[in-house]
Amino acid sequence: MTPARSPLAPAAIQVLPPLAGARIATANSGIRYKGRDDLLLVELGPGTTCAGVFTRSLTRSAPVDWCRAAARGGKARAILVNAGNANAFTGKAGMEAVRRSAAAAAAALKCKPQEVFVASTGVIGVPLDWGKIAARMPGLAAGLSDAAWDKAAAAIMTTDTFPKTATRSARIGGATVRLNGIAKGSGMIAPDMATLLAFIVTDAALPAPVLKALLARAAGQSFNCATVDGDTSTSDTLLLCATGKARNPRIASASDRRLGEFAVVLTELARDLAMQVVRDGEGAEKFVAITVTGAAGDAAARRIALAVANSPLVKTAIAGADANWGRIVMAVGKAGEKADRDKLKIAIGGVTVALKGAVAPGYDEAPVAQHMKGREIDIAVDVGVGRGKATVWTCDLTHGYISINGDYRS
Amino acid sequence: MTPARSPLAPAAIQVLPPLAGARIATANSGIRYKGRDDLLLVELGPGTTCAGVFTRSLTRSAPVDWCRAAARGGKARAILVNAGNANAFTGKAGMEAVRRSAAAAAAALKCKPQEVFVASTGVIGVPLDWGKIAARMPGLAAGLSDAAWDKAAAAIMTTDTFPKTATRSARIGGATVRLNGIAKGSGMIAPDMATLLAFIVTDAALPAPVLKALLARAAGQSFNCATVDGDTSTSDTLLLCATGKARNPRIASASDRRLGEFAVVLTELARDLAMQVVRDGEGAEKFVAITVTGAAGDAAARRIALAVANSPLVKTAIAGADANWGRIVMAVGKAGEKADRDKLKIAIGGVTVALKGAVAPGYDEAPVAQHMKGREIDIAVDVGVGRGKATVWTCDLTHGYISINGDYRS
Repeated sequence: MTPARSPLAPAAIQVLPPLAGARIATANSGIRYKGRDDLLLVELGPGTTCAGVFTRSLTRSAPVDWCRAAARGGKARAILVNAGNANAFTGKAGMEAVRRSAAAAAAALKCKPQEVFVASTGVIGVPLDWGKIAARMPGLAAGLSDAAWDKAAAAIMTTDTFPKTATRSARIGGATVRLNGIAKGSGMIAPDMATLLAFIVTDAALPAPVLKALLARAAGQSFNCATVDGDTSTSDTLLLCATGKARNPRIASASDRRLGEFAVVLTELARDLAMQVVRDGEGAEKFVAITVTGAAGDAAARRIALAVANSPLVKTAIAGADANWGRIVMAVGKAGEKADRDKLKIAIGGVTVALKGAVAPGYDEAPVAQHMKGREIDIAVDVGVGRGKATVWTCDLTHGYISINGDYRS
Repeated sequence: MTPARSPLAPAAIQVLPPLAGARIATANSGIRYKGRDDLLLVELGPGTTCAGVFTRSLTRSAPVDWCRAAARGGKARAILVNAGNANAFTGKAGMEAVRRSAAAAAAALKCKPQEVFVASTGVIGVPLDWGKIAARMPGLAAGLSDAAWDKAAAAIMTTDTFPKTATRSARIGGATVRLNGIAKGSGMIAPDMATLLAFIVTDAALPAPVLKALLARAAGQSFNCATVDGDTSTSDTLLLCATGKARNPRIASASDRRLGEFAVVLTELARDLAMQVVRDGEGAEKFVAITVTGAAGDAAARRIALAVANSPLVKTAIAGADANWGRIVMAVGKAGEKADRDKLKIAIGGVTVALKGAVAPGYDEAPVAQHMKGREIDIAVDVGVGRGKATVWTCDLTHGYISINGDYRS
């Protein structure tokens, strides 16, 4: 069963232009999928720096363990991704599969294995047949192209219904640099450092510690604000690689003022990808933005917003186009963060529905009911205790989610 | 639409015998439901002691605020409950409605208003027409009977598909005492101190501080181990009242050894009611017990078990009879409590499926698949770091839950 393209998918896919210092090849591994590519190799030129943020899951996969160690080196020569098998909870054989795959890629590209970032996504607990990946390496290396970004985004999909791409440019000093990003993810989405898999490559020249600082900030305002079902993956991996081919001035610190635009654009691109992941949420019919203000701090605001976003009762009400704001009150109450019930204010689609701990005087449900019937739902909550604020994105909880995850054996 | 009786409902309802010192009357209030009683008055004899545990929601209802204050007095003469309107998030008018209702009950029963415990359950955010409740008080007071416990359990139902009752007896010293309990709850169930509404009355003679200690312990091992959807109600109220009509010896401390049997039986009764609430989970097709062992402590074990129990991906897999233990690994990983991935052990229906961080050698899925097709699912997880353990109960996440909460306007 291939689910239909999400009704929330962007009208058009962003076409990623070539990016100096990065070449791409894809193939079918023969591991799980038939009739589509499920293996991606990105070759990065010598001197490429990199940084990553990874799942905080305590049952994280072997590839995540590998990438965490590799990221400490700050250098990347390749990204190798397979879709269909997460190589998670596969014991010692799992790490062996990563090591062998990285070695095969390193041999084909003539680089060090510890500069090959390996990511796997798919089913958990099934041993990964690394031999099938290694066998494809010579062919992949021979077929590298700088014009295959669309294929890269498609090759890493699992239950995704559309490929996720984003591209931007920014100036650093007088030079223009480019950023290309791809991501995958649809279910098991409640990133705790990163979403399932997302790879961002720029041609800027930036040292690894600078990338690390920029990426952490961007992740906090993008992937960590997205949730489909509150379930955190064992494989979440977000990488930022800089090939250094652009002729930007040398930058030594993430707080260098010349990085201002780049930092904004990076966050924007990461938000674009994160929102695409939510728009492809399993069974999603509506995209929901939840903004919390007046919290004790930004972190508290984010936790309250996530409590609303992950509440099954809120999500099913949205699926039913039901302006059931009582459930929002409930979710705020259970979040465990400071909130003043008697100052609580809730607006849906810009219309104030509740004020000072009760329904708003003269509340007219008609415009709110109209808003709830749309594809894009806006919920704003002020909890009345401080200045903290946050916005998170989620989708509704529908029969589609149950069908995808419960109606057949995965 | 009245949903059919849950397939997990007990074969027979426990019939509650009269209990000395407690009399009951029910009526239709005319507030929301037609053709059924939705108002309950329990009269408790002079000298009745009591204790309560309540929701920790920060958006708790006015009746919860009232009961918390009343419980500090340790005395109860009446319990007044209405179903259909939670009187939650109703501003100052909400507390006024509680005050007026309690005053009307106090006038009818000739007791103090602050000895009337008021509980409301139902829709959030709609002002409660207390006048309709007050108008029923003289009739209710005139119709009090000691043989109406079955009507009491039915009158407090909202989306419940069956009334929840439990009765036990225990010895204190040489005397036999009785305990009768009723509860309601079906959705918005993830108690954080107590479930929606549960009332336990005993004819034992016990001082309020002793009741308080016993009730806190029982709640921790019963209602606080139950979850349907991870959504915590604004109205959770659990009361334990002791009419003092039994001739048990005088007890001054909760640690008095003569209370041993009573404490066990109280916990047993509370667990019985809590499990009935889970068995009536909205859309539930399967009852699931999740036991976590080997955690850093009992509290850590409970949090891990709740992470598994509240995971939409685990719950939908169970709905689909899918022995997808990879999702259990994921949920353990996201719980945020210490766990050793490489020592993790998972058993389903008593069959070890995973061991030492990978699938169990020679794992045969057939008996596990058979178990997953049943109504009662057992999941055991050992996280390999300590001696902490906990069991929680939940149900699966089905199309029925979506239909109940999302297919129509509530």
